[in-house]
Amino acid sequence: MRLTCTLIWTWLFTLEGLLQLASCQPLISNKRDAGRVKDCGCVPPCLPPTVTNTSQRLNALRSLMESLNVSVYVIPATDPHLSEYIAPQDQRRAWITGFTGTAGTAVVSKMKATLWTDGRYWLQAERQMDCNWELNKGETTIVNWILNETKEGDIVAADPFVFSIVEWESYKKPLLQGKRQFVAEEKNLVDIIWGTDRPPNPTDDIFKVPDQFYERTWQMKVIEIRAQMKQNAYRPTALLISALDETAWLFNLRGDDIPYNPFFKSYTLLAENFIRLFVNESRLPQHIRDYLNTSCTTDMCVQLKPYADIRQNLQEYAKGNVKIWIGQEYTTYGVYEVIPESKLLIHRYSPVQLTKAVKDTTEQKGLKAAHVRDAIAVIRYFVWLEKNVPKGTVTELSGADNVNKLRREQKHSKGISFETISASGLNAALAHYSPNNETNRKLSIDEMYLIDSGGQYLDGTTDITRTLHWGTPTDFQKEAYTRVLMGNIDLARSVFPTNTIGDELDVWARHALWEAGLNYMHGTGHGIGTFLSVHEWPVGIGSPHTCQLQEGMFTSIEPGFYQDNEFGIRIEDVSVVVKAKTKHTFGGVPYLTFEHISLVPYERKLINVSIMNKEQIDWLNKYYERIWNTVSPELQAQNLLEEYDWLRKHTQLFSHSVIVKYSLISLAGALLGSFLSQAWIL
Amino acid sequence: MRLTCTLIWTWLFTLEGLLQLASCQPLISNKRDAGRVKDCGCVPPCLPPTVTNTSQRLNALRSLMESLNVSVYVIPATDPHLSEYIAPQDQRRAWITGFTGTAGTAVVSKMKATLWTDGRYWLQAERQMDCNWELNKGETTIVNWILNETKEGDIVAADPFVFSIVEWESYKKPLLQGKRQFVAEEKNLVDIIWGTDRPPNPTDDIFKVPDQFYERTWQMKVIEIRAQMKQNAYRPTALLISALDETAWLFNLRGDDIPYNPFFKSYTLLAENFIRLFVNESRLPQHIRDYLNTSCTTDMCVQLKPYADIRQNLQEYAKGNVKIWIGQEYTTYGVYEVIPESKLLIHRYSPVQLTKAVKDTTEQKGLKAAHVRDAIAVIRYFVWLEKNVPKGTVTELSGADNVNKLRREQKHSKGISFETISASGLNAALAHYSPNNETNRKLSIDEMYLIDSGGQYLDGTTDITRTLHWGTPTDFQKEAYTRVLMGNIDLARSVFPTNTIGDELDVWARHALWEAGLNYMHGTGHGIGTFLSVHEWPVGIGSPHTCQLQEGMFTSIEPGFYQDNEFGIRIEDVSVVVKAKTKHTFGGVPYLTFEHISLVPYERKLINVSIMNKEQIDWLNKYYERIWNTVSPELQAQNLLEEYDWLRKHTQLFSHSVIVKYSLISLAGALLGSFLSQAWIL
Repeated sequence: MRLTCTLIWTWLFTLEGLLQLASCQPLISNKRDAGRVKDCGCVPPCLPPTVTNTSQRLNALRSLMESLNVSVYVIPATDPHLSEYIAPQDQRRAWITGFTGTAGTAVVSKMKATLWTDGRYWLQAERQMDCNWELNKGETTIVNWILNETKEGDIVAADPFVFSIVEWESYKKPLLQGKRQFVAEEKNLVDIIWGTDRPPNPTDDIFKVPDQFYERTWQMKVIEIRAQMKQNAYRPTALLISALDETAWLFNLRGDDIPYNPFFKSYTLLAENFIRLFVNESRLPQHIRDYLNTSCTTDMCVQLKPYADIRQNLQEYAKGNVKIWIGQEYTTYGVYEVIPESKLLIHRYSPVQLTKAVKDTTEQKGLKAAHVRDAIAVIRYFVWLEKNVPKGTVTELSGADNVNKLRREQKHSKGISFETISASGLNAALAHYSPNNETNRKLSIDEMYLIDSGGQYLDGTTDITRTLHWGTPTDFQKEAYTRVLMGNIDLARSVFPTNTIGDELDVWARHALWEAGLNYMHGTGHGIGTFLSVHEWPVGIGSPHTCQLQEGMFTSIEPGFYQDNEFGIRIEDVSVVVKAKTKHTFGGVPYLTFEHISLVPYERKLINVSIMNKEQIDWLNKYYERIWNTVSPELQAQNLLEEYDWLRKHTQLFSHSVIVKYSLISLAGALLGSFLSQAWIL
Repeated sequence: MRLTCTLIWTWLFTLEGLLQLASCQPLISNKRDAGRVKDCGCVPPCLPPTVTNTSQRLNALRSLMESLNVSVYVIPATDPHLSEYIAPQDQRRAWITGFTGTAGTAVVSKMKATLWTDGRYWLQAERQMDCNWELNKGETTIVNWILNETKEGDIVAADPFVFSIVEWESYKKPLLQGKRQFVAEEKNLVDIIWGTDRPPNPTDDIFKVPDQFYERTWQMKVIEIRAQMKQNAYRPTALLISALDETAWLFNLRGDDIPYNPFFKSYTLLAENFIRLFVNESRLPQHIRDYLNTSCTTDMCVQLKPYADIRQNLQEYAKGNVKIWIGQEYTTYGVYEVIPESKLLIHRYSPVQLTKAVKDTTEQKGLKAAHVRDAIAVIRYFVWLEKNVPKGTVTELSGADNVNKLRREQKHSKGISFETISASGLNAALAHYSPNNETNRKLSIDEMYLIDSGGQYLDGTTDITRTLHWGTPTDFQKEAYTRVLMGNIDLARSVFPTNTIGDELDVWARHALWEAGLNYMHGTGHGIGTFLSVHEWPVGIGSPHTCQLQEGMFTSIEPGFYQDNEFGIRIEDVSVVVKAKTKHTFGGVPYLTFEHISLVPYERKLINVSIMNKEQIDWLNKYYERIWNTVSPELQAQNLLEEYDWLRKHTQLFSHSVIVKYSLISLAGALLGSFLSQAWIL
C-alpha cells in the first residue's frame, strides 16, 4: 500500500494520479478502497476520516515509559479475565491505536508503534490507524521485532493481568534468552495516561436468571464442582474461577459489564470449605445477598470480597497447605504468578467450563425455545429485505439496525449477542466484517448479502448466518454456495462415537469445497452458552484445543467461502449433539450426531441440487419439514401471516428429479455396460 | 484375572473348577486363554511355559539399587536413538521383565516390579511375565505409582539416554513437586547386572546404498540441510542428528544393527563448518571412508569420532558461541542435558526428518518398483494359501515363514521390514499380534485370516495388510470388511489442500464404520521410508503430531475392525500424495489426493458392493485396472502363470448392477413422489 517518493512522482504524471491526488485519495489501484485507506507515503500523509489521531497519547505513554526506564511496552486487547469482548474501560489497545477490531496487540518502543492483527482486520486497521502506527502483517513476530528494537539489558514491560500464562511465557522465555528483561508493571501504563475520557467501571446491579430458566441451583453446581475437585488425583483444595462466564453460570447471576455478554466483573475462589466471590459489593442488592447466603461463613455461604483483593487474597490462601486448581485458558499471569508452583494444579480448562459445556434439560429446552423466537426475528427481517432491497432503500447499517430491533421485540430478549455482521457484495469477503459509516454499502439485487447475527435471551444465546441473493446469481456463486451448504449438511449428518474431539470432524464441513479446489480460512464451529457467551469454548470444531463431544453439547456449524473483492458466503447453524441410531455400538459408547436448532431456511436460488447427493437432499428436506413444523405455529401465534406464507414457500421440499435424471442416464449406461461386458461380476 | 483365596475356594466346589485345577489352568472363564495365562493367585502360582523366571535378575538389580541408595528404577523399552525397533543388546526392558512386546515401561521398587504397556500387549505380557511382575493397565500413572511407593527424599533413578526430553520432564516435574529426587544414573543399572548372555555390540561393515537407488549425494543433502539452517531465524550453527534413519538417509549408508531396520548406531553433528559422524570407526571399510572424505577436515569432509564421545564432544562444542538445533522427538535427555538452554534451538522434528519425508523422483520410483515386486511375493503367497489352507497344513507361523521366504526371493530384497503379523480367527482381534509357538493357530476355511507384512528392498520399504477368507464369511464379517474397505477408499480418494495436516483426514477412514456404530482403536496411517523405517514419522494420519502433507510424501492407509475373541480385519495400503485435478485452486496451492502404490487386490468374497456408493466402486475398479496393468507383466516376466491367472480372476471389475437396481427403485419412488406432490420444486 505504500509507495516510495520516486514512484509517487512518476505516477503523478498519469491522469489517474492527478485526479486522485486532487482529492487526496490513497495510492491504490483498487477503486473500492479509494478514500478509505491511509497513505503515509503522501506529503502530507493522506488520512481517511476514519483514523484517530494518536500523537498525544503516544507522547504521554513514551514519557511515562522513559520515566520508568521502559524501552518497549506491550498492549494486548484483552481484560483481566481474558474475555473475548471487553468492557469500554478495558479497551486500552483500541484507545492507544485507534483500531477497534477485537483481535490484535500493540507494541510501543521509543521510536516506533506497531500493531499485529490477523488478516481479517488488516483493512480495518489501515483505515483506523494514523501514521504513528505501522501494521505488521506477520513479517516478523512480536518478540523478534522487540529484539530488533532493543539492546541487551533493556526493559520490556507489560501488565500481567492482560496476558494468559502461556502468552506471558512466550514473551518471557525468548526475551530472557536475548538478555532483555521482561517486567510485570503492577499498574497498567495506558490506564495512567488515559484521562477523563476513560469510561468508568460499571456500577449497575447484578441480577439473577429467572427461576424458570435454570434447573441446577448454585448450591447444586457448587456441590457438583466440589465433587470433581475431590475426585481429582491431585486433590485440589480450591478452584480459582477467572473467566466471567464461569462465575455467572455458577451462581445463575448476570450483569451488563461487557458488550454482548451478560457478565459482571468478578473472580470466584471456590474452596472445599468456603466460597469467596470477588466483586464490587455495592452492585449486589439485598435480595441477591440473601440468595447467595452472604451473611454466614460456612462452606455453603458466599463470602463477598472486594474485586481488587483477588491477588492478595490468593497469595494469603496459598501460604497454607493447599492446592489451587486453575484453568490455563482463562487465567492471567497476574493471578498465576502469586501462587507457588507446588501449590498449583493446572488443566487447560477449569472443571466449570467442561461442566457448563454439557447443557442440562432446562438449558437445552431454553436454547431450543430461544432459537425458535430468534428464527421469527430473522424471518421477519428476510421478508422485510425481500420487499425493500429492490427499492434500493436498505444499507448494511440500516439492515443491521432492523434485524437487531426485530430481535429485541422477541420475548425474553436481552439484546444482541455480538456485533451484527451485515455485509453486501465484496464486503462479505472479509469474514468478520461489520459495517460502519465509511464502509456502509447499499444492498442490491445484483449482489449477495451475508447476515451473521445473534441474540441474547433469558433462556439462551443464538447465532445464525445466512447468505442471500435477490437477483440472478452466477453459476460460480451457486456452486460455491451449494458446496458450503453441502459441507454444513455433511457435518450435521455425520455420525461419530462419544468423546470424538470436535476438531476431528472438521473435514466434513470442507470436503465438498476441497473436491472443487475451494476452501475457507477460518474454524468451522464454536460452543454457545445459555444466556452466556456466543463463543463458548472448549466445545468447537476446526479450532485448536476443542474438547471431546458429548450428548447435550451445542456448537455452531459454519463453513464458508470468500472470493476476495467479490462476495462472501457463510452458512451457520447452531446444532445440538444428540444420540445417533446405529446398527451396532462398538466400544459400548453411544454414537452421536447433530441436530440443527437454528430454524431458518437457506437461500433457494443459490442451491444447485444437481451437485448434491441423495443423502444431502434427504437431510435437507427433513430439516425443512422440522423448520415448518416448529416455526409456523409460532408465526401464527404471533399473527405474522406474511411471514407464515414466506416460510411455507421457502421450506418447500427439494425434489429428487435431478437425481432421477441422473439415475436414468446411469441406468442406461450400466445396461449398455452389462451388455458389452459379460465378464463383469455382480 | 486374579481372584482372592476365598473366591478360589468357593469356586473349587464347582465341577469346572475341579477339572481346571487338575491341569493347573488359570482361573479364567474364557476357554481360549486356558493354559496360556499365568495365575499368581494359585498356590503354587500357575505359570504358562511362556514366562521367564526373573527372580535372579530382580534380586541383582535390587542389590545394586540398594548400594546406590536408589528406591525406584525406571526401565523404558528404547535405545539412545529412541528407535522403534531396538538392537538385542538394548532390550533391557524385555530382559528384566520377560515381556518382549515393543511398547512398555518397567518400574522396579524395593518390593514391587510393575509393567505398564498398552492394551494390545496385555495378553502377551500376562503370558510372558512371571509372578514377580504386576501388569498395570492404566489404573495408576507411573508417576503416581512411584509417589505411592516412595517417601519424601527418596531417590528415583533412570538412564537419561533412554528417555526423550519430554518424557524425562514428565517424570522430573511431578517427582520434584512430590519432593522425590529424580536422578540420571550415568551407567544403565540393567547393563551392570546383565551378564555374559547380553548380546554384543554389532561389528559388521556399514554399507552404501547402490548408486542407482539414490539421486541426491550426501554432499547435496548436507548442502540442502545447511541451507535450511541458514534460513532459520534463530541461526543455528549446528544440527544434532540423533535418529538412526536420519544419519542413514543423510549419508546414503546402511547397517544391520537393528532388526528390520537397516541402520547403524551413530550420531551426526552437522555444523556450518564441519561434519562429525560418531560411530564405531572399525565398521567403516576404506572405500566408505574415501566416500565420506574422512581424511580431511574442511566443511565437506566427514570427521569420524567414537560413538561414545557424543556427549563430551557436544558439551565441548556448546562452550563456543554456537546454537545447536535438535529435533525433540528423537533426541534423548542424555544428550540434551549437556547443552545449555541458551545454546539450544528445539523443534519437534529435525529438518532432516521433514526433508526426508518428501521423496525425490528416484526415491518415488524405487518405492513404486519395490511395491510391484512386493505384490508378486504377496500374490504368490495368496495362491499358495488358496491351495494349502483347505488341506489344513498351514499355520500362522508356517504361513509367516513362507511369505517371508517369498519376499526374500524378490530382487533387491534385504529381508522383512517388521515382524510379520500372521493371525487367524480370534488372534487377529489383537491388532498387533505376532504368532509364536504358544499361540500358533492353524489356518482354516472357517476363519478369517489377517496378514500384515512388509519387506526391505534396496530401492524401498513395503508394508501391506490383507484380510482373507477361504470359506463362507458371515454377513457381519462382510459388512465390517466392506466398511473398512470403504474407509480405505474414502481416504484414498479424498481431496485436500497442500499442507493439510495428516490427522485432519482421519475421519475419512472411519466414517463408513462410524455410521454403523463400528470403530477401531488405532491410528490410520504412518509414513514409510526408502529402504529405511517402515514407520517413518512425521508423515501420518490419525496419530498425534503428524505433519502437513505435501506432494511426494508416502503414508500407509490402514483402517481396521476388531471383534474381540472372534476376528480382526485390517486393510492396509501404502499411498503416495499426488496432485488432484480440481476445477479451482483457491489459495493458490495445489490440491492433493492419494494414489495407492500397494498393488494386491482385496478379498472379493468379503466385499458387499451393495453398501458401497458409486464413487467407491468406480475408484475400486480403476485401482484394479492399475493393479492388473502394472503387476501382470511382471508376473509374466517372472514366469508365474498360475499367479497371472489368479490376478486376472481377482482383479475383475465390480459391476454397478446393484446400483442400477437401486436406481430403478429410487426412480420409481421419485416418479411416484412427483406424481403425488406437485408442490415439489425441481
